[in-house]
This record gives sequence, structure tokens and C-alpha cells, in this order.
Amino acid sequence: MKSWFKAIENDPTNSTYPIDKILDELVFNEDGLIPVISQCHESKEVLMFAWMNRTSLEETLSTSKMCYWSRSRQAFWRKGESSGHWQNLIELRIDCDGDVLLASVNQEGAACHTERRSCFYLKFEGNKVRIV
Amino acid sequence: MKSWFKAIENDPTNSTYPIDKILDELVFNEDGLIPVISQCHESKEVLMFAWMNRTSLEETLSTSKMCYWSRSRQAFWRKGESSGHWQNLIELRIDCDGDVLLASVNQEGAACHTERRSCFYLKFEGNKVRIV
Repeated sequence: MKSWFKAIENDPTNSTYPIDKILDELVFNEDGLIPVISQCHESKEVLMFAWMNRTSLEETLSTSKMCYWSRSRQAFWRKGESSGHWQNLIELRIDCDGDVLLASVNQEGAACHTERRSCFYLKFEGNKVRIV
Repeated sequence: MKSWFKAIENDPTNSTYPIDKILDELVFNEDGLIPVISQCHESKEVLMFAWMNRTSLEETLSTSKMCYWSRSRQAFWRKGESSGHWQNLIELRIDCDGDVLLASVNQEGAACHTERRSCFYLKFEGNKVRIV
């Protein structure tokens, strides 16, 4: 199953494509979801990883506030709605296969539900893993 | 389904856990895979997104060369084996839910199969998407 993105991968820099076409061609998984990596716009720290469906992606693009799809709750997850820790979208990218999104965001407060700045606070060190 | 990682999330900084316990508790999906984000150690650029199974993760930890699991080929994918574009593992982290990995790597050459440095070369701009 080759995605449409394969056909444009050798197009020159600055080639553009209508957003409606892109939204139609994006590769959502069998649950209608696409993975999203969120990265701090300033520090470049990777903050979290979550999922979007097409509707939450469209909302994110129109509001510039990150709106995920919660797989555990099976509901929209407007980041910050309950915590106040909003993620303002600065830039959104797609990978070469059209099946992953990378969001550059301005994170208010903590991204992680543990109140840590980033969700990636567990680090492999030799034969141990450490909370950093 | 709460992961074991929930039980340790409030442990203090510098708490450590044996790697065998971590490997047993990591949350692999129904295909036995865990998502992996790879980030350039120096520039912090997110380079690519792929998957590992437990065996490829153990190989990655023991060799410090990124070894993914290719879903399309259903085979180990030792990054660089065919392209020469090796990814040397500098640091590996786990997220709060124990179901995503973040690798900080030293990337030789391009991470993307298109020979671009990063796979994330498609950027949303207003009502278009642009190759950057």
C-alpha cells in the first residue's frame, strides 16, 4: 500500500499542494488515527506523543490550539481544557510517508499529566532506567 | 488498562529501576511494537518516526545502533545497513505511559529515504502544504 506521498517525494523544494488534497491523502490507521509528535518551538524538546483523527486535525489547524483524540476516553482531547496547559500550534509538518505529524508548539506550563515539562522523563542508563 | 509506569510516576527524581523490569513492563501494541521518535542529538531536529519490537530494542541497547522493526517488510531494519546512514544511539528515553520511546541519535547522513536530512519536510502553510 503505497501512499500518495510517495508520488511527490522527488518534487523540488517549495512545491505546494492544496490542503484539501493533503487531508484526503493523509494516512490514518485502521482506527482513523495518525500519530502526532509535539515539540517545544523554542527549546526543541520533544514534549509528548499522542494521536489525532481527521476532525481533531482540522480543528487544530483552524484554532491553532492542539486538539488530540484520546484513545482511552474515545473523545476529543483539547490539550489545556482541564489543566490550563494549552499548546499553541506554531508549525505543523508531515513525514515522507504521510502517516506521522510533527507539531512545533508553544507549551503553556507542563505537557505531561505528571506536571513535568515533558513526558519523556525516564532515561536508560546502563542496566537501569532513571527518572530525570 | 493501566501500565506499571503509572505506579512510579510520582517517584522522586533519580529513582532507578532495573532494565529487565522496564523491558517486561514496556507497553507494546497488539502487534508487539512500540513507536520510536528519533531526534538529532546536536540540532534537536526530529528526524524520523518508526517502530521497534522487544528484540530490536534489546539489540539497539546492546549495540548502540538503531535497529527498528519494519512493518512493511516484517523484518529487522538496521538503519544504515543498506544506506550507510547509521544512527548511533546517544540516549534513550521512555514516556510517562511506557508506550513511546524517544531516541537521541548521532545521524550519519540523511535519516529520510529521500536523502533529505529529516523525514518531516512537508509543512502546512495556510491553505497549502509546502516542501521545505
